[in-house]
Amino acid sequence: MSSAVSPLAPTEVPDMPVIAGVRLATAAAGIRYKGRTDVLLAIMDKGTNAAGVFTQSKCPSAPVEWCRAQLKGGAARALVVNSGNANAFTGKTGRQATTLTASIAAKAVGCKPNEVFLASTGVIGEPLDATKFDGVLGTLADSAAPADWMGAARAIMTTDTFPKVATATVKLGKAKVTINGMAKGAGMIAPDMATMLSFVFTDAPLSSAVLQSLLKSGVQDTFNALTIDSDTSTSDTLLAFATGTAAAHGAPKITRASDPRLKAFTKAFRAVLADLAEQVARDGEGARKLVEVIVEGATTSISARRIAMSIANSPLVKTAIAGEDANWGRVVMAVGKAGEPANRDKLSISFNGIRVAKSGARDPSYNEAEVSEAMKSPKIQIKVSLGLGKGRDRVLTCDLTKEYVAINGDYRS
Amino acid sequence: MSSAVSPLAPTEVPDMPVIAGVRLATAAAGIRYKGRTDVLLAIMDKGTNAAGVFTQSKCPSAPVEWCRAQLKGGAARALVVNSGNANAFTGKTGRQATTLTASIAAKAVGCKPNEVFLASTGVIGEPLDATKFDGVLGTLADSAAPADWMGAARAIMTTDTFPKVATATVKLGKAKVTINGMAKGAGMIAPDMATMLSFVFTDAPLSSAVLQSLLKSGVQDTFNALTIDSDTSTSDTLLAFATGTAAAHGAPKITRASDPRLKAFTKAFRAVLADLAEQVARDGEGARKLVEVIVEGATTSISARRIAMSIANSPLVKTAIAGEDANWGRVVMAVGKAGEPANRDKLSISFNGIRVAKSGARDPSYNEAEVSEAMKSPKIQIKVSLGLGKGRDRVLTCDLTKEYVAINGDYRS
Repeated sequence: MSSAVSPLAPTEVPDMPVIAGVRLATAAAGIRYKGRTDVLLAIMDKGTNAAGVFTQSKCPSAPVEWCRAQLKGGAARALVVNSGNANAFTGKTGRQATTLTASIAAKAVGCKPNEVFLASTGVIGEPLDATKFDGVLGTLADSAAPADWMGAARAIMTTDTFPKVATATVKLGKAKVTINGMAKGAGMIAPDMATMLSFVFTDAPLSSAVLQSLLKSGVQDTFNALTIDSDTSTSDTLLAFATGTAAAHGAPKITRASDPRLKAFTKAFRAVLADLAEQVARDGEGARKLVEVIVEGATTSISARRIAMSIANSPLVKTAIAGEDANWGRVVMAVGKAGEPANRDKLSISFNGIRVAKSGARDPSYNEAEVSEAMKSPKIQIKVSLGLGKGRDRVLTCDLTKEYVAINGDYRS
Repeated sequence: MSSAVSPLAPTEVPDMPVIAGVRLATAAAGIRYKGRTDVLLAIMDKGTNAAGVFTQSKCPSAPVEWCRAQLKGGAARALVVNSGNANAFTGKTGRQATTLTASIAAKAVGCKPNEVFLASTGVIGEPLDATKFDGVLGTLADSAAPADWMGAARAIMTTDTFPKVATATVKLGKAKVTINGMAKGAGMIAPDMATMLSFVFTDAPLSSAVLQSLLKSGVQDTFNALTIDSDTSTSDTLLAFATGTAAAHGAPKITRASDPRLKAFTKAFRAVLADLAEQVARDGEGARKLVEVIVEGATTSISARRIAMSIANSPLVKTAIAGEDANWGRVVMAVGKAGEPANRDKLSISFNGIRVAKSGARDPSYNEAEVSEAMKSPKIQIKVSLGLGKGRDRVLTCDLTKEYVAINGDYRS
């Protein structure tokens, strides 16, 4: 684990308001890490609706399978998250561990096991000893309180160097409602639905179908437009919980995703997801630069996404950024290998607004000194204009540094 | 450029026999590197047939486009290779540079420009000053001689740490024929047809159609089953030349790829390609481990290839290997993200013959000390058994080290 906080960490941390109907507690259960919190219990009031999106991995973790199954009910009373062990590729033992954890949590909270959601993150393939939750979860249920969102975000970290939270307050009908979110993730980040672990809570009275719809559309340009290392986790989980407690002060119950009253909420919800996703990029393992890749002029937006991802996942582009080198030749390479329509002779490329290539060749006005200076910035925007159509997309990533290799060369051992 | 020779370099270098009808010469033209050879001229006798496969990049280099066009004629008299500048993404200037180079070479050799093949490797996006070839190529044509294959292989290097050659002698009919090959490449290696630059010469009397057929089938399990960093070059070029000079001592002329007399030759030809491809993996930028990924039990061989490539391209798998960590959890992750049929609970994984995971969980007999010892080997074999069908494939790659990042963070600047 790297210990120094990422230089790209946000400088300001938001005050996280309380969400009525949600209580949090954390503990050090000794799952893997010594002397740090590694278990989060979130308890939700009766009436809380749940939704979730998960990794598209063909080898998902046991908790992912557990959550998928429980979402059918749509009701949630508890969320148990542990860091240090992903409970992935653990076979029958893994399934038994999820069942046991849920029953321990259900007993502690006073609900049914199928109202308990689980997420695990950490090493893959090691059996998770769920008996460690016995006792701990009971204590946590007793001490759970509404306030410590930052502590909760800290308890779910693995190689993360800072806890990631985001919040928004927005009107639903005439009532104020709140959205709080947290996320963890620094490596094995290349979402194919959601990525890593992220949990969003709101007091808005939304049905689970509405919540699911918000999640599904919300992740496309946030978590799904993010890559650290092209490696999709077996554990990617994004869960959303709506306690509905804001109904008590007049928030309307929303049961259709197309409800016009949902407009401001949808925007705020998406902003929370986008904020969390950007924080994940800012905490990419070993990251020293936040990289925004914009592709425009593609034949379609899907094509733009594929080209943007090809650039964002290219080790050669990422190492060039680490070296503060505006190596647009490697961007050309990454466009070329994407397999999407591209015409070399129409291609333009800019770094932080400075156009370095135009119409398939070096921009005549390109000044190496000016662009070299721009590459020193901690935020690099690569913009590629294909000149073919109106397809546009944007993805976030980070640079590839020696620290990434160091972190991942020693993580398990 | 890294200077120390890769620890994975072959310990024995083959004696490269002369191929009648091929003469070689190299020079330092100062294209980019100072004080080292950077131009290769190969001159072939009249009657030489040519074939080639190239990058599938949508943004190919000017020399790739030039070669594609000239292959229609099927005849070759000269090959000009320069290292240091790829003449890629150089627009109209790039096309003019290829035309000028070919006409200079044609004059020097005494042939038509459309019998001249070109390949360039090095930085992308910098204009190539083809006037530098003027004079040099004339001198080279005068001094060209049959012997110095190693010098030729050295002249085409960029970040390579050792020259790559391979040879085979085999019977065609009752006559002995020879196949000599060379390759360069260390980074931006993820072939989608051929990869990097490679040139194969033979005195066998093969038509260009036969040669093309041999190349096309030969690359599938050699150069196309190789990845260093998932980044497909804009310049990938594999050219084969058959002088036909062996006809003088009785080798039969082969004009059909299905000719049964071609059997031994096909095998030897493939072995030369496989040898060169493995040498490219052994010289992967910063590589300290040669990694062979075998996937078996897939639904099809295409599916096996995709899963093998997903493993071989995973930064997390590659950094784990660099850290001598048998992190099979990351192999599971890479299988899961490939998007191909896989059943977690049937999956088995072994490192260098030691099974670490079985039926979707840790192998009970798995001994950490034993596998840790095995991971110290410079050659690591990862074998994944999916247990679904008979699809099998094998790809080669290398580990991902801090040196890769260092090499590529400073290459252009």
